[in-house]
Amino acid sequence: MNHTETLTRYTANFVDELSINGLTDVVISPGSRSTPLALTFSEHKQIKEWIIIDERSAAFFALGMAKQTKRPVALVCTSGTAAANYFPAIVEAHYSRVPLIVLTADRPHELRDVGAPQAIEQLKLYGDYVKWFQEMAVPEATPAMLRFVRSKAARSVYMAQEGNAGPVHLNFPFREPLNPDFSLENIWGVEYEQSYMPALDGKKRLEQNQLEQLIEKLKEKQNGIIVCGPQTDEIFAKAVTNLAAQWELPVLADPLSQVRSGQHHKDNVIETYDAILRNEEIREKLKPDFIIRFGAMPVSKPYLFYVKEHIQAMQLVVESHTGYREPAGNATEFIFADPVLLCEDLIQTETALNFDTGWLDEWKRMNLIAKKHLLNGTEEKITEGEAVRGLMEVIPDSSSLYTGNSMAVRDVDTFFMTTPKNISVLANRGANGIDGMVSSGMGAAASGDPVTLLLGDLSFFHDMNGLLAAKHYNLNITILIVNNNGGGIFSFLPQANDQKHFEALFGTPADVDFKHGIMMYGGEYSLVSTEEELKEALFTSYQNKGLSVVEVKTDRVTNAQWHRHKWKQIETEILGDGN
Amino acid sequence: MNHTETLTRYTANFVDELSINGLTDVVISPGSRSTPLALTFSEHKQIKEWIIIDERSAAFFALGMAKQTKRPVALVCTSGTAAANYFPAIVEAHYSRVPLIVLTADRPHELRDVGAPQAIEQLKLYGDYVKWFQEMAVPEATPAMLRFVRSKAARSVYMAQEGNAGPVHLNFPFREPLNPDFSLENIWGVEYEQSYMPALDGKKRLEQNQLEQLIEKLKEKQNGIIVCGPQTDEIFAKAVTNLAAQWELPVLADPLSQVRSGQHHKDNVIETYDAILRNEEIREKLKPDFIIRFGAMPVSKPYLFYVKEHIQAMQLVVESHTGYREPAGNATEFIFADPVLLCEDLIQTETALNFDTGWLDEWKRMNLIAKKHLLNGTEEKITEGEAVRGLMEVIPDSSSLYTGNSMAVRDVDTFFMTTPKNISVLANRGANGIDGMVSSGMGAAASGDPVTLLLGDLSFFHDMNGLLAAKHYNLNITILIVNNNGGGIFSFLPQANDQKHFEALFGTPADVDFKHGIMMYGGEYSLVSTEEELKEALFTSYQNKGLSVVEVKTDRVTNAQWHRHKWKQIETEILGDGN
Repeated sequence: MNHTETLTRYTANFVDELSINGLTDVVISPGSRSTPLALTFSEHKQIKEWIIIDERSAAFFALGMAKQTKRPVALVCTSGTAAANYFPAIVEAHYSRVPLIVLTADRPHELRDVGAPQAIEQLKLYGDYVKWFQEMAVPEATPAMLRFVRSKAARSVYMAQEGNAGPVHLNFPFREPLNPDFSLENIWGVEYEQSYMPALDGKKRLEQNQLEQLIEKLKEKQNGIIVCGPQTDEIFAKAVTNLAAQWELPVLADPLSQVRSGQHHKDNVIETYDAILRNEEIREKLKPDFIIRFGAMPVSKPYLFYVKEHIQAMQLVVESHTGYREPAGNATEFIFADPVLLCEDLIQTETALNFDTGWLDEWKRMNLIAKKHLLNGTEEKITEGEAVRGLMEVIPDSSSLYTGNSMAVRDVDTFFMTTPKNISVLANRGANGIDGMVSSGMGAAASGDPVTLLLGDLSFFHDMNGLLAAKHYNLNITILIVNNNGGGIFSFLPQANDQKHFEALFGTPADVDFKHGIMMYGGEYSLVSTEEELKEALFTSYQNKGLSVVEVKTDRVTNAQWHRHKWKQIETEILGDGN
Repeated sequence: MNHTETLTRYTANFVDELSINGLTDVVISPGSRSTPLALTFSEHKQIKEWIIIDERSAAFFALGMAKQTKRPVALVCTSGTAAANYFPAIVEAHYSRVPLIVLTADRPHELRDVGAPQAIEQLKLYGDYVKWFQEMAVPEATPAMLRFVRSKAARSVYMAQEGNAGPVHLNFPFREPLNPDFSLENIWGVEYEQSYMPALDGKKRLEQNQLEQLIEKLKEKQNGIIVCGPQTDEIFAKAVTNLAAQWELPVLADPLSQVRSGQHHKDNVIETYDAILRNEEIREKLKPDFIIRFGAMPVSKPYLFYVKEHIQAMQLVVESHTGYREPAGNATEFIFADPVLLCEDLIQTETALNFDTGWLDEWKRMNLIAKKHLLNGTEEKITEGEAVRGLMEVIPDSSSLYTGNSMAVRDVDTFFMTTPKNISVLANRGANGIDGMVSSGMGAAASGDPVTLLLGDLSFFHDMNGLLAAKHYNLNITILIVNNNGGGIFSFLPQANDQKHFEALFGTPADVDFKHGIMMYGGEYSLVSTEEELKEALFTSYQNKGLSVVEVKTDRVTNAQWHRHKWKQIETEILGDGN
């Protein structure tokens, strides 16, 4: 068999096996060495390819798509720094447990470490940030080697998803000439119709005696809270709120827990705990006997303080597979079990518990007070909080909100009140970077679902290259930029007191008019200055096809003051006469 | 000593020691955890700080500055994916041997691997791409620990530059509160006035018997060439051309060798070898007995073919320190010695050599033919080659040309003819990426020297964020964009024959009007369509302050044809009647 036929069959069997195992999308960045993979993916009828020039954007695009679709997405790039540009998104995928299949083309062995152009050391390039790394063989097309590529392809799809999902990396050495020949017969290896590695993967579930042991511990307690941190399982909300209803416990639900919106029982959901727990006196009064947390640690910093200040509370952390996400440093009991099964199993237990219902009532009372203050009042010039409040009002049912880090996700935490609408809320909370946000949103939008991307100006600036995908693929996306001309979150930190260096080092105003950038990518643009204008502009954007950008210009100092004023109002009313 | 005083003294002693060891510039990206370093650098009077929001751009900015100034540059970023964004520039710095001192802030030990926000595993984050990694201690300010930070600071500057230069990485765990107190006395540790590690670092030089051994081998040879690949030592050109003059050998000088321009003897410099060696018959006729190469492998692919086709030739590769840059795969004799000293030593040897002067004459004849064809003729609509030719005519004396990879550097190879002007030519040829080019050019321009950045549209698009530095610091830079709306180099490759997939996968037109982007950053913009217009626009740009962008729009197919036509003319005339 000649070189081209070998190359073609080897690559085609690999790509086909990915498809058989459920891969539907690949994000390709242009390059020469990656030609065999790029062409073969394009030729495969069941896999859709997305071409993204900037590899950093490409990887975040894949990440956003994988988060939205809950399926692994493949990435293909050429050799050299192209692969290094994937690194930020791979780190994020690792920590936020998103399945990515990273396929890097490489020079063959004889061109490595000899000063050949565009050849860098790519073995284990991403260190421990990938779950699984494989150096692929130089293409061969013997039956044994075609079975080899099939098994690696099938395993890569499995490995990316098993346990805590994450990125996997396969490195492909390719020799020239690099063009496959698709006129050959049966290149896809038609004899293979089922996966090379069909796998039945069980879920962790506590045994009866373990459940009883758990209930025994809870029997002694009175005041408990259920905390739902960032997680993406859609059916979890119903299970956890059913449990909370039966046990009459408050549910502190992070905006990324998928518990604040939907058709499930939400009476016990406390969505304003971030505002409530800002006050130290309130935190002290609210002594919990136990905390059951699902998902990652919530976004809220006051909640972190609350946990750290109550080391006496029994803290239970539930993880589907494994992990140690307990940044407070408290002693913690871990439950490694599927959260939905655990909730269902706990509901079934018949032992009587002695929880204090006054505790739940107090949380509900505080929540109502906080909501009232947060939802009332309108400033003449729109504030950052009001922008997010307005967004949450008009965001369409059955859509996704992708939120940026830093201030954006915190404002969503504050203003995303429980709603019967189905809003899937996504964010890059693995490493909490401000990078790659535009592309992450585009990747989510590429699935065809309506997506709103909320982010600050620094985050928008950081990944403006991501807008090219909207233009190229005519993606439907609404971007709301809250532009305070710099790093707004720093105005809440002690750094703000250093007047000599603050603006240069932390404020970092970019002073650019994004309108030009949006014109470059053919988007609709509107600048709004009141909450009404904002809602109208957003509403219009949801009727439009393609890219719509709505910008709100705010002031960092005013913003910090406005937030502090709201928190003050809330604590004053909660503490009331007793203070 | 309290926390803040400890933090202040620890960080200040570190920063001060960097300065004592010659560090003059630091590139800082905004963040919270990096506050101690960021503020202390800002406070230090001898170090200039540059604030760049996008960390990928920041790292390339530092790379460009270090290449231009030939001094190490420091980088500071916060924890998390910020640090991962440095990766592409670190890979480039590793392969192109550029000293960078990468300082990443990190969460302290108790916040690692516990799901704390913005905390990623940063130890050995860049793998083998840094020469030296140190995990710093949590700040302490005992005399012993202040000596510790001083020694690490001094060593980091030394390590980045010793042997083959490259990036080093120091990771700093910091606890809150993060603000230093500059009102404290003697924070810089005034008792230290000289480096903590003054070092005298010798150069490698062949011994007399080694020189004789080398000469003995050359005595048996007749036809030799000296090849000067990419290298940045300014005094090398004089040494190597003196040797070539004495030995009457042709010098095949890469555009990045710094040998094509300057006041040295250039009679033997063959600058058109890329065009000459395109023809297989010519390559075969030009049988070399030996090749002495300095610097990295040249950019020219025909030269690579030439070497591979003449495995009988004795190949000598000179490296200042160590390395194995021989991608042809030929058996090679390595000389590890300072190139300038080696040239001087070889000139001093008195043994008579028997080189054939007809060989040099033949190279000169071919070079004249190639130059004539390359310099003659003007198309109605400017071609890519003509754009570069025009640029090389008007580029000012004592300035730098930073050239992009892919087509840009190849066109510079073709059209940069020997000149008495002092033009320093820089490029990112470590990994040959198209990423980070705008920022690299900005970093070079930040030194204050006039810089022209030449690049293609994909490369410009990839790092448009880099333009913010020009606006922010009012940098003087001229950017020439050769815009063929996509990946022009692929039109020269076999992939171009795949009409079904070519445009989508390789052509990858971005179809954006860069004018908008340049307006966003407040640059001057002009679009030109003839060589005369181009030269006029460039000339004007050199009179202007700030950012000037000149764009040439070309066609990928026409470009490939035009180049091939030129090469055909050259080979026809060189082969002449003998063909």
